[in-house]
Amino acid sequence: MQNKEIRLASRPAGVPTDENFQLVETEVPSIADGEVLLRSLYISVDPYLRGRMRESKSYVPPFQLGQVIESGVVSEVMESKSPDFKKGDVVSAYLGWRLYNVANARQLMRTIPGVSPPSTFLGALGMPGLTAYFGLLDIGKPKEGETVVVSGAAGAVGMTVCQIAKIKGCRVVGIAGSDEKSKYLRDELGVDATINYKTAGDMFAALKEACPNGVDVYFDNVGGAVSDAVLPVINDRARIVLCGQISIYNLDKVDVGLRPQTSLLVHSALMQGFIITKYTSRFAEGVGQLAQWFTSGQLKHVETVVEGFENTPQAFIGLFSGENLGKQVVKVG
Amino acid sequence: MQNKEIRLASRPAGVPTDENFQLVETEVPSIADGEVLLRSLYISVDPYLRGRMRESKSYVPPFQLGQVIESGVVSEVMESKSPDFKKGDVVSAYLGWRLYNVANARQLMRTIPGVSPPSTFLGALGMPGLTAYFGLLDIGKPKEGETVVVSGAAGAVGMTVCQIAKIKGCRVVGIAGSDEKSKYLRDELGVDATINYKTAGDMFAALKEACPNGVDVYFDNVGGAVSDAVLPVINDRARIVLCGQISIYNLDKVDVGLRPQTSLLVHSALMQGFIITKYTSRFAEGVGQLAQWFTSGQLKHVETVVEGFENTPQAFIGLFSGENLGKQVVKVG
Repeated sequence: MQNKEIRLASRPAGVPTDENFQLVETEVPSIADGEVLLRSLYISVDPYLRGRMRESKSYVPPFQLGQVIESGVVSEVMESKSPDFKKGDVVSAYLGWRLYNVANARQLMRTIPGVSPPSTFLGALGMPGLTAYFGLLDIGKPKEGETVVVSGAAGAVGMTVCQIAKIKGCRVVGIAGSDEKSKYLRDELGVDATINYKTAGDMFAALKEACPNGVDVYFDNVGGAVSDAVLPVINDRARIVLCGQISIYNLDKVDVGLRPQTSLLVHSALMQGFIITKYTSRFAEGVGQLAQWFTSGQLKHVETVVEGFENTPQAFIGLFSGENLGKQVVKVG
Repeated sequence: MQNKEIRLASRPAGVPTDENFQLVETEVPSIADGEVLLRSLYISVDPYLRGRMRESKSYVPPFQLGQVIESGVVSEVMESKSPDFKKGDVVSAYLGWRLYNVANARQLMRTIPGVSPPSTFLGALGMPGLTAYFGLLDIGKPKEGETVVVSGAAGAVGMTVCQIAKIKGCRVVGIAGSDEKSKYLRDELGVDATINYKTAGDMFAALKEACPNGVDVYFDNVGGAVSDAVLPVINDRARIVLCGQISIYNLDKVDVGLRPQTSLLVHSALMQGFIITKYTSRFAEGVGQLAQWFTSGQLKHVETVVEGFENTPQAFIGLFSGENLGKQVVKVG
């Protein structure tokens, strides 16, 4: 059976382009005992993948040239040689950008029947949701009434952080890159105030106005100049959760700017990087709570869908110009 | 009775100078019930006082122009109207730069009889010792066999950090500003390796060589370029304790340099500022442990003494050119 896959053709210099990717036709291998054959339904594209396209080690080993790109994929089981899965099951797993993947049953996470669309398991009930959940609650530790600022607030992780912080009774201020995104955050997700960093002008003044009681938790998906502006507004014992730094992923030089050390020192504040894979042992807890909020209507999954497997690289590239509202997925179709 | 005191005459621009201070002759006030009259024996000069000389709030409110400078002072009780202290007692307290201070008995900490010199209570058994103790153990949490890097290693806090880290079974690398200081750290305090940042040239290469297993804890007294060089060497889950940033205290502009966020993110690392006054409720625990190590010979108090009350500003100014080995004190005499 014919298959297609997308490989890393060359390492990006700056913002990735189509030329960095190669679409290749291959054959679907047959499956062995314990394995399943999966048809891709939705593919997740995520900013952190840019780090794996560099030669140097980031969180995880870099993609090799010619290697198939991997990310979260929601798939339907086509054929199973595992007693745990049967044809028609919908599962989520970390897989290659392929039309069809062969996977060991142990790699697969079940989706919750009745949750629609299945791409929710790449967003609010998937890695971005878990990232928001553990990053905000475990490191940010927001208390009722505190002010939580979220950068990249209209992205997959950011939107979930905003909603969880509202559930926890916080004042939530979202930083996003368009008035449309800002309006969505306020009107649909209950965010208390928003800042469009592209038009705000003086970010420090905008943050001061949006955060009259200062900032207790800053959930940072963005880094760079936006994050510099938050530092003068932090309160004593503030917690800065470093989740992503999308503004600098495409920089091919060191990141020079305001050093945060003095602000952290003066305010006895914490800055902590984290990676969601270190919470694997607690995923069941996280998904359980997220699913409960989702079912009760307190947590929304928001997504932007690009149609067509061949457009996966373009969907990925679009992340860096902020084309997505919520989770960016590719519907393989 | 005649008294002398040193006031803040003007706010420093850059490195403080003599002109920022004013020596004034005053009268010793009489004491009320519950108060004691104290004769200063040793005055502590500390880098963080530079922050209080700015107009803006740092840890604590700024000194006002014309206000007497305050810091740690070890004194002898001359007269007491408190049942808790008698003439001849030696006490430590946060007091004005004066020959004689009047203080409420509740402000005073007793020194431990037999510990000599009394200035030890401004160093290894005083605030610098407690700062080292809680900063290293509570935030840095070093485990046996881990590598601990200390900047400002030959200062009062740094030397105590180096010694506690050795007691805890760590590999200790000290960064200091002269070969003489480096030699002292190695030969007298058992530090495993040292780097003279003024002559090392490529700090990154020097750190890589001194830390073959990477850096697990970085206790930072210095900030700036020295600390930038540590970031590429940190291990996963490293802890960076922000204790001081002496290299930038005299900067009258924002601190621009390598942003540490990417390193913290990639390594799930923590950076935490702290201030020792938040540990007040645990001081007895800290002093108790430090005193035990001191008595058993595992912890040394090292100091540089300037003689004469009038020379207190000069002793303070000298901190910024690194003239002190260990704790800088003024012997009032």
